[in-house]
Amino acid sequence: MPELRKDPILGRWIIISQERSKRPTDFIVEESTSSGGFCPLCPGNEKTTPAEVFVYGREEGLPPNSAGWQVRVVPNKFPALVIEGELEKSGEGLYDRMNGIGAHEVIIESPDHEDRFAYLDPSRMHLVFRAYRNRIRDLARDRRFSYVMVFKNYGRAAGASLEHPHSQLVALPILPRMVISELDGALSYYRYKDRCIYCDIIRQELQQDIRVVCRNDLFIALTPFAPRTPFEMWIMPRRHSSSFTDQSDESLERLVEIFSESLRRLDACIAGVPYNFVLHTQPLRSQPLDHYHWHFEIVPKLTSIAGFEWGSGFYINPMPPEDTCRYLKEALI
Amino acid sequence: MPELRKDPILGRWIIISQERSKRPTDFIVEESTSSGGFCPLCPGNEKTTPAEVFVYGREEGLPPNSAGWQVRVVPNKFPALVIEGELEKSGEGLYDRMNGIGAHEVIIESPDHEDRFAYLDPSRMHLVFRAYRNRIRDLARDRRFSYVMVFKNYGRAAGASLEHPHSQLVALPILPRMVISELDGALSYYRYKDRCIYCDIIRQELQQDIRVVCRNDLFIALTPFAPRTPFEMWIMPRRHSSSFTDQSDESLERLVEIFSESLRRLDACIAGVPYNFVLHTQPLRSQPLDHYHWHFEIVPKLTSIAGFEWGSGFYINPMPPEDTCRYLKEALI
Repeated sequence: MPELRKDPILGRWIIISQERSKRPTDFIVEESTSSGGFCPLCPGNEKTTPAEVFVYGREEGLPPNSAGWQVRVVPNKFPALVIEGELEKSGEGLYDRMNGIGAHEVIIESPDHEDRFAYLDPSRMHLVFRAYRNRIRDLARDRRFSYVMVFKNYGRAAGASLEHPHSQLVALPILPRMVISELDGALSYYRYKDRCIYCDIIRQELQQDIRVVCRNDLFIALTPFAPRTPFEMWIMPRRHSSSFTDQSDESLERLVEIFSESLRRLDACIAGVPYNFVLHTQPLRSQPLDHYHWHFEIVPKLTSIAGFEWGSGFYINPMPPEDTCRYLKEALI
Repeated sequence: MPELRKDPILGRWIIISQERSKRPTDFIVEESTSSGGFCPLCPGNEKTTPAEVFVYGREEGLPPNSAGWQVRVVPNKFPALVIEGELEKSGEGLYDRMNGIGAHEVIIESPDHEDRFAYLDPSRMHLVFRAYRNRIRDLARDRRFSYVMVFKNYGRAAGASLEHPHSQLVALPILPRMVISELDGALSYYRYKDRCIYCDIIRQELQQDIRVVCRNDLFIALTPFAPRTPFEMWIMPRRHSSSFTDQSDESLERLVEIFSESLRRLDACIAGVPYNFVLHTQPLRSQPLDHYHWHFEIVPKLTSIAGFEWGSGFYINPMPPEDTCRYLKEALI
């Protein structure tokens, strides 16, 4: 059973998850993404994954865990947290721990091994976003969970261990520190100004128009004022909303336009660049929040995190977001 | 001139530092550590670095920036922050920025290109620690600076761009967020318990004796209860002290024993493993603090930071610190 442990000074939680009993030297082998060999996420290999929890597009009458699907969600075979059991909290002197209850799922974005998220057919990307929404809504009913983190690792350098297009979600029994900081920061601003800080950012960005990558009537993609890496992008709904799960199908269609344009522009600037994206949304079962605004953050893997960043939480970025925005806008797609 | 920018929601500062005008595709080339070629840090090449700010061991009568030194400190040729100028703060709508005033120095740990920090002669490692102490004391007199971050990147995967043994320091005009969180966390505990949390950790660790890697009468090395990565280690003074610069020469001698034993044990477990270490000490010109305790954190580069970690500030660690501690203690050195 995995275990959650809290750093007593910073309040940072970590997950101790021993997939297999590793020896120290096992860590030096860089895991490469499976290429050419057997792919457990490809159609026909459905039986090699844990049983699916959700699927789009399988023809009626066909049994679960058979081929013929469009988007498929399965539990992670090597989960960081496990779904069975009661949540148990305990102390050890001044330390705190919790057993590792949670969910860890894989959203398989396409049956086609060669597909890439940026170039998915719009109707398929729409299904992926609807699958995110569906899974978050479903997991919210489990009262052991406080938050669902949806994210994608694309490329080996960004942490992907499988090549087949997929994203992941982790349902957590506690609010992650980063989410708490974001909620707290946004709340302080709201208390001071009586306005959502993200809404104010969008207003200022549209007016300045030096960091807006693309937009439609419902969404905006921008390079944030203080990015951690070159080409970091945020995608936000233009109308205030604190929860991704409140989005309608129509709204998610408009999100697809902006998301795929942004990623294609990124790919046109730096072909094949590895990246992570993370959905930031409100905690599960929360009322709509006036001070918080859901969004995606896309972080390309271009600079390495070294001692300075570890120690300070301070990032050194070699290119201003105004420049990366210009490159992104000029890119031919 | 580099620029500091603040994320308006999280309060996280980043440095925009354009060393050269890069184009997007310049980022894909992984910089490798210079190997075999010209080394600007080797003796005889002193003129290729900016003029030294501090040196140990050069024979009397020899001019500055000549060979014959033991430990040498020079400004970084490609600094993240620059030393000249007045600190200027400005706003841009709801955003905050500051010009990039600071110091960025390189501590060259040995004239021998092949030396490695873990295997430095004790008298030489002692000089390195004394150089850290000396530089922090000196930079503290510059009232533009609030903090000096001392760190080492060892190995390319940990961010080192030069092979020659060296560490770095950055003097900052603001307190980094991580330092603030650590000070705040330690202060909350102190207010509640009237004791330093680090002193309590040391007491509990000595009593439990399952995470203590090594110790002498003045220092202790342990694998922390909630480590971010396998083989993370903290080195702490056993007697309460909030500032590294208050350490005597004798105390630093005893630090050398524990530091080099810890790193050699790490190297015996995973030969050549890349790592970062960071000195955590109190802000410049602060009075001694009852609630804070200086220490070093050593973080091996073994796991990759992927989307989940970016989004949550939550680390997944595949090996418990009790296991890594056992491996470290059993290692033959």
